[in-house]
Amino acid sequence: MRQIEHIKESGGWLNRYTHDSACCHCEMTFSVYLPPAASTRKVPALYFLSGLTCTDDNVRVKAGAQRYAAALGIALVMPDTSPRGEGVADDPDRYDLGQGAGFYINATCEPWASHYQMYDYVTRELPALVEAELPLIPGLKSITGHSMGGHGALICAFKNPGAYQSVSAFAPICNPVNCGWGEGCLSAYLGDDREAWNAWDATALVKAGAKPLPLLIDQGTGDEFLAEQLHPRALVDACLERNIPIQFRMQEDYDHSYHFIASFIGEHLAFHARHLQSD
Amino acid sequence: MRQIEHIKESGGWLNRYTHDSACCHCEMTFSVYLPPAASTRKVPALYFLSGLTCTDDNVRVKAGAQRYAAALGIALVMPDTSPRGEGVADDPDRYDLGQGAGFYINATCEPWASHYQMYDYVTRELPALVEAELPLIPGLKSITGHSMGGHGALICAFKNPGAYQSVSAFAPICNPVNCGWGEGCLSAYLGDDREAWNAWDATALVKAGAKPLPLLIDQGTGDEFLAEQLHPRALVDACLERNIPIQFRMQEDYDHSYHFIASFIGEHLAFHARHLQSD
Repeated sequence: MRQIEHIKESGGWLNRYTHDSACCHCEMTFSVYLPPAASTRKVPALYFLSGLTCTDDNVRVKAGAQRYAAALGIALVMPDTSPRGEGVADDPDRYDLGQGAGFYINATCEPWASHYQMYDYVTRELPALVEAELPLIPGLKSITGHSMGGHGALICAFKNPGAYQSVSAFAPICNPVNCGWGEGCLSAYLGDDREAWNAWDATALVKAGAKPLPLLIDQGTGDEFLAEQLHPRALVDACLERNIPIQFRMQEDYDHSYHFIASFIGEHLAFHARHLQSD
Repeated sequence: MRQIEHIKESGGWLNRYTHDSACCHCEMTFSVYLPPAASTRKVPALYFLSGLTCTDDNVRVKAGAQRYAAALGIALVMPDTSPRGEGVADDPDRYDLGQGAGFYINATCEPWASHYQMYDYVTRELPALVEAELPLIPGLKSITGHSMGGHGALICAFKNPGAYQSVSAFAPICNPVNCGWGEGCLSAYLGDDREAWNAWDATALVKAGAKPLPLLIDQGTGDEFLAEQLHPRALVDACLERNIPIQFRMQEDYDHSYHFIASFIGEHLAFHARHLQSD
């Protein structure tokens, strides 16, 4: 784990690292924000999974999360959205497949399977690495994300009962097996057996019996991808069917951008902080 | 004045406009954030002048100012850093001269003088336009900025007694007549008579008798441009010499980036809000 940036922000430190990923078989980059409290004790962590086309850089520059993390004493762990590099499969003509579009799943089909193991990466390899190297309380973590990363946060939480104290999402892809973005990635990474896709679909996981955990979702009514790609109603219906507590908030007029995330990131941090208290 | 973007943020609206500038003789772009209060009444305005290479977009995406403006009921007016366009003089090999580097002065030398009238633009044309077209309280405004824009904020305030309620700056160029960035722009835009440059230098203006107003400056000790370009000591010394109240804060380890701005923008908004109360 090599530190490549070290920037003071809101009293803490925004660091960027590279390391050789055993899961993804390539060099991976990620950022961590350590709040001021981390200089004297270990702190809990909130993972933020980003959306299509993003790297770890978008959220740290645009979301304005660091000031809340500083005040609440929570670290932010911000992974990349896919494996990267010259030897890594890609579809350079598409923004929604390949590099920048890992979809937080474990690919089973080549040429993707050799590197696209983002689910194992964000749920296992990265937590083990940062908990060993940084002042984080082992195992005390929550997860959030935006769009494709909101999907990622939801499936990571639903597939790992007990691993996350809480989960939230901004405009998540709630039912990827039934939208263009999801179908494009799942068919490439997993093949044509749609039954196999359900293991990576938040709505299908809830229907199949996922264990409840504190769950907050914000969705803008002015989101340009709401009708075609996000399908929050499918997830809300599945939660209601199983009597799973969900806080689902339609936010009037907000779009899909980081201006939407910036508007509510403070409330998401406060939500996770309530579930990350270690005392 | 043509609205080209309209994005909900923190309960208010982040709008972007273009218009044909009479000062700059070209189409200019700027952004305005209107807080929720502006839907029912007129509000005061804080102008934010950006630094070298920036447009109006950097601050609205990276500074995290909108949430504070929303809470405090203050509009943010975010102009571009120079005239732009095919017919506008430029030095495409340099980031610190020409387009993106207007320096908030009125150029007197060609080929710059035809368009580079950014001082008149930000102090006269733009306020008149937005006060006529948007729910802003006429004449009730303050000003801030970053780096070259911090210099801009300081000279706009010092050269216009009574026009701004308060001024602040992040890592401003405090004495441009004595640094590379300043000398490069001032010699091109104003010619070789260094005496004429002093009318556009915050330190020189203070020495020459500028009227005090509430003044806050933040500067990071880890700023990579501190030693060569910014020279805050010259301005602080000039203020102390004249017994002008200044809040000057050296902030340990912070660099020149928007991560520094984001760390203190809330305190700057609160500072200006205290001086923008209209009740």
